Amino acid sequence: MNNGTFISFEGGEGSGKSTIIPRIAARLEAKGYDTLVSREPGGVASAEKIRHLLLDDSEETLDLYTEVLLFAAARRQHLVEKIIPALEAGKIVLCDRYVDSSLVYQGHAAGAGIEEVREINLFAIRKWLPHRTFFLDIPINVGFHRIAQNARAENRLDQMDVAFHELVRDGYHILVNEEPERYRVIQANTDIARVEGEIFTSITEML
Amino acid sequence: MNNGTFISFEGGEGSGKSTIIPRIAARLEAKGYDTLVSREPGGVASAEKIRHLLLDDSEETLDLYTEVLLFAAARRQHLVEKIIPALEAGKIVLCDRYVDSSLVYQGHAAGAGIEEVREINLFAIRKWLPHRTFFLDIPINVGFHRIAQNARAENRLDQMDVAFHELVRDGYHILVNEEPERYRVIQANTDIARVEGEIFTSITEML
Repeated sequence: MNNGTFISFEGGEGSGKSTIIPRIAARLEAKGYDTLVSREPGGVASAEKIRHLLLDDSEETLDLYTEVLLFAAARRQHLVEKIIPALEAGKIVLCDRYVDSSLVYQGHAAGAGIEEVREINLFAIRKWLPHRTFFLDIPINVGFHRIAQNARAENRLDQMDVAFHELVRDGYHILVNEEPERYRVIQANTDIARVEGEIFTSITEML
Repeated sequence: MNNGTFISFEGGEGSGKSTIIPRIAARLEAKGYDTLVSREPGGVASAEKIRHLLLDDSEETLDLYTEVLLFAAARRQHLVEKIIPALEAGKIVLCDRYVDSSLVYQGHAAGAGIEEVREINLFAIRKWLPHRTFFLDIPINVGFHRIAQNARAENRLDQMDVAFHELVRDGYHILVNEEPERYRVIQANTDIARVEGEIFTSITEML
């Protein structure tokens, strides 16, 4: 990596990532930092097509290992076409979900195994791990309540049940304990200005 | 695996796999063996869609590692939906290309590395390696000549050059040396009845 800074945001449903990230980006831009906000598949044509396969509600059920491989393929293409060029141009990249989402959702919660899913994802991302990952932690019931209020369109992941999301949260805490230097745990069950301020301060201290 | 027998066929362009396999299947069926002939993506809907991404001649170039992951994903789904059920039903499965094609084409010839590609593919296939793999070996120029005569529709793989196909052939010989008990090398630069007979004899000795 040249001069860019790679930051990912992780968290369960309703943790507020998609609200927070544009606000952080706006504050960084206002300070003069060139910033890229993205989320997989990020408008990358082939990654969009892969994502479509994953979220397709057709009758055919994708095998869990097929899903792991497809998520990794879409991640790779998004990384190569969008994230790496931005980092090489010296930008701050704010990415809504990245490799850790696969470790937690497919690896831990769905049961493919964190280590096995990590192996596949390291093949996909090579050295391109984030410099910092913010885990927006929130109690499951609070997250679900937020989603219900927003009446977001449902996709396959939203249809899964509470026990699954408890496993997701548990999985993130496993990753945080493994890599405390990369992770910052943000208590997201509080007002948005405070969450935003905490993350913004943490980022500016890195720059 | 229960009672089924899993046989894969490998080889470069023009090695004659697609001619030989139906003939072998017909002879096995005539002997009363229930046989499934398949090739990835094998009519499995999601695997077909993945394959379409891989062979799509759009302007976007897929990264090599993305390709490896997509081939493995299509392979997994084809395996789960088609090959495993056939083997569990006691059939003889004749598969035109399988995991070794990725090791040789993406791993060795395109340079992703045989070992790295193997790791990804073992995640995809788990224990489901073929009992026997026939490598139809043929000099590159003979294979190309056959293709030109058949005037087959070209796809991306066919457009690659001779040096690449020399690497493919070299890659197969590496795999044969690694697993001599699984592999049988068939000299395919001879008349088809002889090739067919050699393969058929080898299969019936296994059954």
